[in-house]
Amino acid sequence: MTLKDINLQELKELKEIVYQANMLLSEYGLVIHTWGNVSAISKDRSYYVIKPSGVSYKTMKPDDMVVMDLNDNVISGTLNPSTDMPTHSILYKTFDKIQAIVHTHSPHAVAFAQAGKDIPCFGTTHADNFFGPVPCARDLTKEEINSEYEKNTGKVIIEKFKLNNLDYAATPACLVKEHGPFCWSLKNAIDASNLALTLEEVAKMAIYTMQVDNKATEAKKELQLKHYYRKHGPNAYYGQNKK
Amino acid sequence: MTLKDINLQELKELKEIVYQANMLLSEYGLVIHTWGNVSAISKDRSYYVIKPSGVSYKTMKPDDMVVMDLNDNVISGTLNPSTDMPTHSILYKTFDKIQAIVHTHSPHAVAFAQAGKDIPCFGTTHADNFFGPVPCARDLTKEEINSEYEKNTGKVIIEKFKLNNLDYAATPACLVKEHGPFCWSLKNAIDASNLALTLEEVAKMAIYTMQVDNKATEAKKELQLKHYYRKHGPNAYYGQNKK
Amino acid sequence: MTLKDINLQELKELKEIVYQANMLLSEYGLVIHTWGNVSAISKDRSYYVIKPSGVSYKTMKPDDMVVMDLNDNVISGTLNPSTDMPTHSILYKTFDKIQAIVHTHSPHAVAFAQAGKDIPCFGTTHADNFFGPVPCARDLTKEEINSEYEKNTGKVIIEKFKLNNLDYAATPACLVKEHGPFCWSLKNAIDASNLALTLEEVAKMAIYTMQVDNKATEAKKELQLKHYYRKHGPNAYYGQNKK
Amino acid sequence: MTLKDINLQELKELKEIVYQANMLLSEYGLVIHTWGNVSAISKDRSYYVIKPSGVSYKTMKPDDMVVMDLNDNVISGTLNPSTDMPTHSILYKTFDKIQAIVHTHSPHAVAFAQAGKDIPCFGTTHADNFFGPVPCARDLTKEEINSEYEKNTGKVIIEKFKLNNLDYAATPACLVKEHGPFCWSLKNAIDASNLALTLEEVAKMAIYTMQVDNKATEAKKELQLKHYYRKHGPNAYYGQNKK
Repeated sequence: MTLKDINLQELKELKEIVYQANMLLSEYGLVIHTWGNVSAISKDRSYYVIKPSGVSYKTMKPDDMVVMDLNDNVISGTLNPSTDMPTHSILYKTFDKIQAIVHTHSPHAVAFAQAGKDIPCFGTTHADNFFGPVPCARDLTKEEINSEYEKNTGKVIIEKFKLNNLDYAATPACLVKEHGPFCWSLKNAIDASNLALTLEEVAKMAIYTMQVDNKATEAKKELQLKHYYRKHGPNAYYGQNKK
Repeated sequence: MTLKDINLQELKELKEIVYQANMLLSEYGLVIHTWGNVSAISKDRSYYVIKPSGVSYKTMKPDDMVVMDLNDNVISGTLNPSTDMPTHSILYKTFDKIQAIVHTHSPHAVAFAQAGKDIPCFGTTHADNFFGPVPCARDLTKEEINSEYEKNTGKVIIEKFKLNNLDYAATPACLVKEHGPFCWSLKNAIDASNLALTLEEVAKMAIYTMQVDNKATEAKKELQLKHYYRKHGPNAYYGQNKK
Repeated sequence: MTLKDINLQELKELKEIVYQANMLLSEYGLVIHTWGNVSAISKDRSYYVIKPSGVSYKTMKPDDMVVMDLNDNVISGTLNPSTDMPTHSILYKTFDKIQAIVHTHSPHAVAFAQAGKDIPCFGTTHADNFFGPVPCARDLTKEEINSEYEKNTGKVIIEKFKLNNLDYAATPACLVKEHGPFCWSLKNAIDASNLALTLEEVAKMAIYTMQVDNKATEAKKELQLKHYYRKHGPNAYYGQNKK
Repeated sequence: MTLKDINLQELKELKEIVYQANMLLSEYGLVIHTWGNVSAISKDRSYYVIKPSGVSYKTMKPDDMVVMDLNDNVISGTLNPSTDMPTHSILYKTFDKIQAIVHTHSPHAVAFAQAGKDIPCFGTTHADNFFGPVPCARDLTKEEINSEYEKNTGKVIIEKFKLNNLDYAATPACLVKEHGPFCWSLKNAIDASNLALTLEEVAKMAIYTMQVDNKATEAKKELQLKHYYRKHGPNAYYGQNKK
């Protein structure tokens, strides 16, 4: 795959939306410094566009976005891609309807990751957006850390979804233990960044809930299902697209 | 009831104030994305105006507000009303002096709702605004969730006020268990949004108070009464309207 | 005392600085809505200027400030003074070097007040600004609440300082139980509002400290003294006024 | 050492960057009022430039920065240097590759200092920036407080690094017990202020983590090393400088 195989108009639009979605992380206060990264994949899933590594949100431009194939090769771009790039690649290859991926170190979501715990579904805010708890993947072994670390980070996410029989379309986020959240969208990069904000808000509410009652339990299952399907699936009736 | 039965000048003003009150939720940081909704009822209580479902605060206009009768029929508007609309309808029909209703997922108030606990009246900030604890309604049964869910959400609020012999005029807010706060005003929509901010601030202070002392108890009853009646009723002496 | 006994230039300046100090509370995020109030006293201590009751920070003007004598009579102004006015009067009369008083419901300071606990001096940030713990006054009796409530609020502050042998110049703040903080300055109204922000920051740090270690103890006495006297008294060497 | 021994162009640039780095503390919300201070040393380590004591961020100018030699003498400047100046001097003399030092009272980092506890390395956000826990130095003795207090503050930091065999280049921060954080950069003053923000964020995440699980343990050692060396040392591959 090389740059000449790519529709340049689609590429330009993808760079622009990935740039906008990265800027949203900063605008939403989910990242400081150069932290966080967003990527989005092309329609034919032959390449994706990702934030460059360690570049400031204050100076970043759409053209700084790096173009990657799915085997971790740079197709176009003068900057290094995000170091988390191999995590993105393997998620795109395995979760084959994902259009965009976001990684942040937003503090409340990180708290659950650092504690190695799922975010429990305490209420409808969570259930509106995530089906069931937001899972926390297992920690990586010494071997997984020392060789192909970023790829293995993706692998433990995938393993978690397989073992727990989770649907990545219904539960579009995972915590990586002792690290932080990844989330993704089946729509586009802006939607993925919006979901990163939702995840942080849901994690924040969960911590506050535990402060009110440290024995708080998850919301009634019927309520979780009601809210999830109010916004998702053929019978959804939230928003303007469906009657 | 149809649009031709409505005073168009009153309607225009009601749409404008409901729009402004919705925007206040965003300005106050009580909502993210398209979350939250405000409505207000006409003087003769024949119709009310409510935020459309899933519309962004960045693009929303006064004319996007949806006009409803009290039997959940759209009278005017091209957009779907908030999915929480049937909760608003039944509250207007039952609490018959309410002029405006607000629903948010503001995080500290949600924490009490998710924990299924009343917000205790720990001090004068609370007592200035809410008579007694802010109650948390019971959770809905499976049947109540699966049929007429939003209407039943209103019903458990009403039931809570009836069972506990509460005055909706003096305690203008209720938490819905595993969901979040509803509050209302006997004045207007702006006042209702202001109250939503007050509720979040009071919930925040309550959580901080529990962090300082997890055995903290409610404020002395005389103090609660003093502060409530300093601001409300015939002997109120706060503000500029009464001497 | 009437308006004709007052130097109008001094009055104008006092209204302006009290207005600015009230606006600072809003700018610092210490108050929402119309909450909080600042006052400042004239040089000869014959009158003071205070925020009007229930007026929005968005529309408030310097000329809205109300001029009071020390017997709780309005000397000049078309608006009602803050309902907390009698607390200010008695503090000015008793703590006779105070130049300005601030009352807020800032949430972390309120948390200690609602829990009925002093703010412990956990470290140098506190000791730089307050000599010893920030005390919490006792709760008012039923009788004190039901008659001359606001005056009695001042009285329990004064009683606390007398009983504990505290120096109001060195410990320029007190929490009122189940209510919130009052603080004061021997300099001017701007300094008093700055101190209200410091108090909230110190209360916030204290809560965070208790979250890190719920058995945390106060800072070593020598350290407290060192920091207090680094900024206050004849041997102070912080800032630009002293060498 | 006198002003005539100094390259005036280098001095001008150093004052400017130290000014900018101080302003960053305010912009990042790490300081209120006149709190906090940043300094940076000249290339030949013969002098350094530091924030003046007690000057407001609103009015501070680059030329207000004070020029010091390493024996605590003012070389140039009409204002008093920060009272913490002797802490800076001794750190520059002992940690001889440090280019800039920052001291703040940022509240989450202060919480660990006030509790007298190290900030545990709970995850990759911490490990990306600090090698191992951020240490908390011992409290000063009565004698150390009462004579050359600020110099002794530096000495307990240095003692802590010596006793625990820590590398100041890899762990560029230390908490002073019952006081707050100091951090430093081997690059420049802007980098040091950025690190002060990182430290506060890491402390915040650590407190949140303890709220999710009060028995949370440090991240796996291999993960800590992986992340630290992903960003630091000859094999670093984060950012744009290395391939």
